[in-house]
Order: sequence, then structure tokens, then C-alpha cells
Amino acid sequence: MLVVMTGVPGVGKSTVVKKAFEKAEKKDIKLDYEFLNFGDMMLKSAKSMGLVEHRDEMRSLPIEKQREIQKGAAVEIRTMADDKNIILDTHASIETPKGYIPGMPEWVLRELKPDVIVVLESRPEDVNKFRKKDIGDDFRRREVDNLEGIERHQSVNRSIAMAYSVFTGTPIKVIWKPEGTLPQAAETLLEVLK
Amino acid sequence: MLVVMTGVPGVGKSTVVKKAFEKAEKKDIKLDYEFLNFGDMMLKSAKSMGLVEHRDEMRSLPIEKQREIQKGAAVEIRTMADDKNIILDTHASIETPKGYIPGMPEWVLRELKPDVIVVLESRPEDVNKFRKKDIGDDFRRREVDNLEGIERHQSVNRSIAMAYSVFTGTPIKVIWKPEGTLPQAAETLLEVLK
Amino acid sequence: MLVVMTGVPGVGKSTVVKKAFEKAEKKDIKLDYEFLNFGDMMLKSAKSMGLVEHRDEMRSLPIEKQREIQKGAAVEIRTMADDKNIILDTHASIETPKGYIPGMPEWVLRELKPDVIVVLESRPEDVNKFRKKDIGDDFRRREVDNLEGIERHQSVNRSIAMAYSVFTGTPIKVIWKPEGTLPQAAETLLEVLK
Repeated sequence: MLVVMTGVPGVGKSTVVKKAFEKAEKKDIKLDYEFLNFGDMMLKSAKSMGLVEHRDEMRSLPIEKQREIQKGAAVEIRTMADDKNIILDTHASIETPKGYIPGMPEWVLRELKPDVIVVLESRPEDVNKFRKKDIGDDFRRREVDNLEGIERHQSVNRSIAMAYSVFTGTPIKVIWKPEGTLPQAAETLLEVLK
Repeated sequence: MLVVMTGVPGVGKSTVVKKAFEKAEKKDIKLDYEFLNFGDMMLKSAKSMGLVEHRDEMRSLPIEKQREIQKGAAVEIRTMADDKNIILDTHASIETPKGYIPGMPEWVLRELKPDVIVVLESRPEDVNKFRKKDIGDDFRRREVDNLEGIERHQSVNRSIAMAYSVFTGTPIKVIWKPEGTLPQAAETLLEVLK
Repeated sequence: MLVVMTGVPGVGKSTVVKKAFEKAEKKDIKLDYEFLNFGDMMLKSAKSMGLVEHRDEMRSLPIEKQREIQKGAAVEIRTMADDKNIILDTHASIETPKGYIPGMPEWVLRELKPDVIVVLESRPEDVNKFRKKDIGDDFRRREVDNLEGIERHQSVNRSIAMAYSVFTGTPIKVIWKPEGTLPQAAETLLEVLK
């Protein structure tokens, strides 16, 4: 099983995943998953190709090289997923100054062949509240109070996830997690994972 | 003409189709269409491949076999559509416990090459009301009162339909049919069919 | 740079582009772009293939020919874009009697390989107000007061743009321009162009 976890920054992906595993333990359900992050896997892939030494260098590579790295990471993750269960932390789409870019463009998606893509959604207000707490992070501070932006990003993520599913047939699990519904969201995720 | 009819369960696809044909008759417009259901065509395709005898067995086939069946059904429908007009009843996306899956993933879509995909939409309240009436069906009973779920499924269907159109250039006709607008919806469908 | 500008009719594409260039001039930022319109390029491509003499004839060509023309135009634009910066005016989706069709179906998109796709959005009320002013145009007059239709078209455009991005990895820049925000919208576009 290769489970791809997506959601806008601050929606609470890791919280829901953690809670789902706690629930599994309480219910004596054995979940055996390795956690991977697509960004980390890209860095590993770039290093092994001898292209970069540090994460910051990746952005300055020519776009063709960046795609090669993305694809390399996808191939490696798919190979790992043939042997064990993986939860892959990544983005449905990434907000950049030039616009939204897909976290899994065709050349990644066709290699990755995820078994399910989870799209975690919440109310923009809740996401915003979470982001505000995280004041140590400059990037996030700039983003606060941008409720319309959060709503737009979530709508974009859902649309792009549906496009992903046409390429690979992968089910798209939308989990709705407004404030106060963490237990239910974790339960829904657990049903997907077990 | 291969017209694909989609819409969430309970939105009233067959009602609108029936009404469109009644209108055609009153106006002396000759509509010559054969009605097919994608699920039925898949079963037929699976039987002819010697893979199953009953519908229930299809779900337990390995995923690769299921895809082969889907593709086989699509090829057969396309062949038929080259000789006559067909209205194909299917889903833009199907809600499963693992998430939304595409009714026409790439390997189906590229064979099917529909001439138009109709997406029938209504207010969640109206869909819900219709589903409640249909109390003989356990599946549907479980679904009642899930207005947010209906809204989400409709939004997902519209997104996925737009992704379909990029692959094949097929026009996506969204028909909006809230309660009380059956005549207009049927009229709009008639314009597509004639 | 090949920048594709999209937005529903009446959303104010040319106004925002013009304002962005004015801002650039004031700030002494040199923008060197050629403006192209996809429809014009298709006509040019059709003429050079000897298929038509006038724009009106294009619609009566067989669909396969139309696709060839679209592809021809895309190839030519891509070739031009390798030498200079281009702003391409086109549609994310086009509303036709048979439904929404993609402005950049797969066979166009894979040749065009845009560097960024801008989706200009506004409030349906503002779009409608603009369309009403333009009363000399019969097509537009018919469309007035159709707020739900404008909203649906904008939602469809955003979905289809996200599907485009999966094929090519192209960033999708959604620019939100309700009444009174022309300066900000132009500023955002300028950031994309420079």
C-alpha cells in the first residue's frame, strides 16, 4: 500500500496521522507503515545523481534536471512500496509565486502509482488559526489572515486530485476535518490505512 | 453519437432522459438512441472473457483484470457507437470506502471517445429528498441526510469531468436541475441529443 | 516565456494586461512581449494548410481537420516562444451549445508547453456588469444576467486549468480581480511577466 497524504500547510496532516495510529493501537489493529516525505526523497535522489549537496541547490537546477530528480524519487518510492506499506507526505499542489504547481505531475504520477491519495481539508479559519500559532516560521507568518487564499488552495487541491485519478484510477479520499472532528477524521483515515 | 449521462445517485438522470424523449415525441423530433449501462456492459465483457458468471464476482478479481474488463466494455461500446446513437449511463466518479474513483479512467476514456458527457446536477436537498423516498435500498438509506457529502460528490464530478475533456476534447454539458426545473433540464438535454 | 492568459469573456483580461504594462513602464521595468491570440493563430494555420479562406469556414471542417489546425497553431506558437516572450490570449474552456470544451486539449497542450497559465477571475456581478455595457454584441447580450452561468464557467475554468498542469507541470496563476482591485491584479500579473 502506498498512501499519499496531502493537504494545505497547517491543515493538520501529521496530527491526524498520529491520532489514527493511536486509535489503531487502542483497537489492537496492527498498522505497519514507513513514513516518507517526497521532498526528502527528491533530495536523496538528487544527491545520489551527484547533482546537489544541499537542499537549497535544487531550485537553481535547470527544470529538466528537476524533473529527472522528481521522477527518480518516484521510481524509488514505488520500488519501496512494492515491499512494504508507505505513507508519503507530499502536496496535491504547491503555491509558488508563479502559481500553483502540481505535486504529482504526470511523470511523477505514472511512476508512483499510488494506491490511494488522501486529501485532508478543513475550514480556512481553522487552518489560519493553526498557522498563526506557528510564528517561528517567516513563510507562514506572511500567509496569515489569508482566508480566501486558503479556500482557493483547497479548491485547487481537490480539482487537481481528481485529475490525478483519471491518469491512474487511484481513489481520492477527501477527509473533512473542521475543528472538533479530529477523532472522526482519524477514524476515517484508519479505515483507509488498515 | 455517444452521449455519456452522469450525475450522483438520486439526481434524476432517468427522469430527465425520459422527459427529453417525451418532449421530442411531442415536437415530432425523431430520436433514435440505444440505452446502455456501463456496469452491465462490464459484466457482459467479463462473462465473454470467461472471468465471472455473476456480477458480485467482479469485485474480487485482481485489479488488473478489472481494468481489462473496463477496457473491453469501452471498446465494445465504441464499436457499437460507430453504427448507432447511444446513451451510456455511467458515473463521472464513484464514491467507495477508499475514496472517489473515476468512472472513466484514462484507459476507458481513450477507447470510449464520447461525443459529449452530460453532468446532471441538482441541489443537495433535492437529491437527498429523492434518496429518502427510495427506502427499499439499504445502501441509499445509509446515505441519507448527508448534504455535505452530496455537495462534495457533485463538486468532485464536475472537476473530474473537466479533466476528462482535456484527454479527448469531449464537450462537458453541465445541466442544472433543481426542483421545479425538469422541463427546462429536459429541453437542454434534448438540444444535446438531437 | 510563453504566458497563457485566460478568463471568462468580460472578466477584463486586456484591461489587466494593459495596466500591468503601464506599471512596468512607470517602474522602468522592460517587458518585451509579443501578443498573440490563439483563434487568430488557428486561422493562420488553417489558411497556410489551404483549408479555409475565412474564419467562418473553420467550424464546418471535419473535427479531425480542426484538431490538426489547433495542433499546427500550437506548434507554431511554441516555435515562436523559443525565440521571444509571448502573451497568448485564449480560453481555459469555451462554452458551446454542446457543453464546455477545453481551450487546450491534450494535443494542443503537449505542443504548446506554456511556462505559466494565468486564470483571471472576478465576481460574477462584475463580469456581468461589464458584459451589459457591451451591448453592441448580440452574443453577449444574450448572456447577460446569467450570474450562475458565469460562476459555473469560472469554476469549470479553474478545474480544467488544474488538469492542464498535471500534463505539463505548468504553474497555474489564479488572479482574483473583483471590482476595485485592478491595481493589485496588474501588480500580480507584472510579477509573473517580469
